[in-house]
Amino acid sequence: MTFQQAPHKLLMIPGPIEVADDVLYENAHPAMAHVSPEFVPIFGEVIKDLRKVVHASADSQPILVAGSGTMGWDMAAVNVLQPGEEALVLQTGYFSDGFADALEAYGVKTTKIEAPCGKRPSLDEVKSALQQKKYRAVTITHVDTSTGVLSDVKAVAAAVREVSPETLVFVDGVCSVASEELRLEEWGVDFLLTASQKGLGCPPGLSIVIAGPRALKAFEERKTPPATYYLSWKRWIPVLKAYESGSPAYFGTPPTNLIYALHKSLKTILEGPTSLEQRLQKTKEASDKVKKFVADLGLKQLVAEELQQSNGAANGMTAVCYPNGLKAPDVLPKLAQRGVVLGAGIHKDTKDQYFRIGHMGVSVVEPARNDIDKLLTNLKEVLAEAGYKP
Amino acid sequence: MTFQQAPHKLLMIPGPIEVADDVLYENAHPAMAHVSPEFVPIFGEVIKDLRKVVHASADSQPILVAGSGTMGWDMAAVNVLQPGEEALVLQTGYFSDGFADALEAYGVKTTKIEAPCGKRPSLDEVKSALQQKKYRAVTITHVDTSTGVLSDVKAVAAAVREVSPETLVFVDGVCSVASEELRLEEWGVDFLLTASQKGLGCPPGLSIVIAGPRALKAFEERKTPPATYYLSWKRWIPVLKAYESGSPAYFGTPPTNLIYALHKSLKTILEGPTSLEQRLQKTKEASDKVKKFVADLGLKQLVAEELQQSNGAANGMTAVCYPNGLKAPDVLPKLAQRGVVLGAGIHKDTKDQYFRIGHMGVSVVEPARNDIDKLLTNLKEVLAEAGYKP
Repeated sequence: MTFQQAPHKLLMIPGPIEVADDVLYENAHPAMAHVSPEFVPIFGEVIKDLRKVVHASADSQPILVAGSGTMGWDMAAVNVLQPGEEALVLQTGYFSDGFADALEAYGVKTTKIEAPCGKRPSLDEVKSALQQKKYRAVTITHVDTSTGVLSDVKAVAAAVREVSPETLVFVDGVCSVASEELRLEEWGVDFLLTASQKGLGCPPGLSIVIAGPRALKAFEERKTPPATYYLSWKRWIPVLKAYESGSPAYFGTPPTNLIYALHKSLKTILEGPTSLEQRLQKTKEASDKVKKFVADLGLKQLVAEELQQSNGAANGMTAVCYPNGLKAPDVLPKLAQRGVVLGAGIHKDTKDQYFRIGHMGVSVVEPARNDIDKLLTNLKEVLAEAGYKP
Repeated sequence: MTFQQAPHKLLMIPGPIEVADDVLYENAHPAMAHVSPEFVPIFGEVIKDLRKVVHASADSQPILVAGSGTMGWDMAAVNVLQPGEEALVLQTGYFSDGFADALEAYGVKTTKIEAPCGKRPSLDEVKSALQQKKYRAVTITHVDTSTGVLSDVKAVAAAVREVSPETLVFVDGVCSVASEELRLEEWGVDFLLTASQKGLGCPPGLSIVIAGPRALKAFEERKTPPATYYLSWKRWIPVLKAYESGSPAYFGTPPTNLIYALHKSLKTILEGPTSLEQRLQKTKEASDKVKKFVADLGLKQLVAEELQQSNGAANGMTAVCYPNGLKAPDVLPKLAQRGVVLGAGIHKDTKDQYFRIGHMGVSVVEPARNDIDKLLTNLKEVLAEAGYKP
């Protein structure tokens, strides 16, 4: 295979991210029957490999369905929880609020521990909230893509286990899987949602959730069937178990090409020249480089200073505040003209005040691409052209 | 662009179907920001072109979301209908039953006009059912992929308008769009669902629905919000309107690569050397050829004889009964060994008694591919090797 993707602008937003040539080639796989003996083991391996990427237990159930990351919130709401149950939402930005909205759409009652833009609830606040009321679940947005705040999933999960051991721990890992350390079994995460187009290095279109044994038990013991058809685990779990055991099954047609793409990407992540641990390390190094560079330019991050000092800023992305006097039109379109695409702000309180840089996947794992340097050099030049002096 | 997909077995199931090289190449498009000025007009044109393929009115709303065809049933159930409302389901096989199951999952009450495998409810039965009870919606499976039965959407929709004009007409066009004639506005279809991997000639992973003005009104006037987050038109319609008008908007990340692929395929369907009308004609000719070939071999179709004589068999697929003494293992794996993939039966009453051939898209539009002849020649030889004598 010597496929090379078309020339294009360098995509350095916090997802979708740059996709490797060999993964895109798999996305152009010839049409395959979803029940064919060629496709079945590919899907089966993807299911197994997903557990490895997030260190999930053998009795956890990965569920992959055509959809977007957003759909993972619905998966939790409609399968694991029941209408009227209570969930505690740890606010970190746009995406934690989205998780709450999704739960509410299904009749789950949510309580937010609020945090200002760029911050996250403290462990003490979490413990205190859990002491005051019984919650069926706590939601943690591992990396809130709107702010770059990194949650301490390990510590929060431990706090939940300590104060309210029956409470389920739900993690939104859309912007963290394969970019940030995440150990579902060891840390006691009961439900994870993610998507294909960020750290997993594929095009968008695949909703991925992993249900741990306690989430599966909650699903099995629910009093009423899930009020959904397409999202119902009653429909999907037998299909995924069949594929993993080597047999085809049907509910809805799986996105075969994306599953070939994810298969290739997972093999690179797990068995490529860079180990998963090295990948996380390289992501951190790229993050440190980007964050130091913008600091040296005199730019502030959206993430609060004290969080930056205590591993509370994401390694896969950086949210950078515009310097005084500059706005998005001074920076983002100029960078795009130079062939580098960064993301605009999306936090409701501050969206015009910052931009977002993604540094995940091939862009950090393959230094020969020179993606990070290209981005930083162009950013510096564009700021200078706009009249900014550090 | 000189991309050529990898050598592979010829996929002649009723979806997913063979995908053209130029469409697969778009599915390997470099990663793009979903809000970029390059992607926005692509998505906008796809929305407009979808209306053209099914002759939908200018005030209808196409809604494209990462998902599978199955998800379109949920879209209708949760957005257009309300719990407790009544729907009349015209039974034609596995997929009409699926539509009913999906509606029931959301609390809609369904009544089926039953039909034996290979048949469809008569117009008189439809009229009679509508006279006996008031239904909010009627569901028609245009082509039931499990049987190859083709519904007469035009006549059924007219009968509904005549007997019960307030009743909404829902059409499952997953296996009919771009293969069978379908004129939403003229025929009075209020809601259509389809998917990317059949007549539209793309890989699977995109749920596509088109809501006509009456379905949109039903949605707007509903008393309670849709009990869903990911599937809610409250979330999606503003996003799709924005893209069509040339601005980006965000709810969930759209499957950008599939939308590039669909853009390419729609341009071929609408503006390629073969017009849409010619495409339907060529699909019919291929169907006639396949059906005559299997009849000459002495094989029966699953579709009842009288329906075959009255335009009641699909043009995009053929369900063929095994001759006496032969079963799936005598035919399908042998064909696969020869590089031709056909589909197994899936109707619950008869699934071991027949197999399914898809003849849609590039396989019927591009005679130079020789797909139909390759399929028929190999089928004849495999049957002969299995000891079958016409």
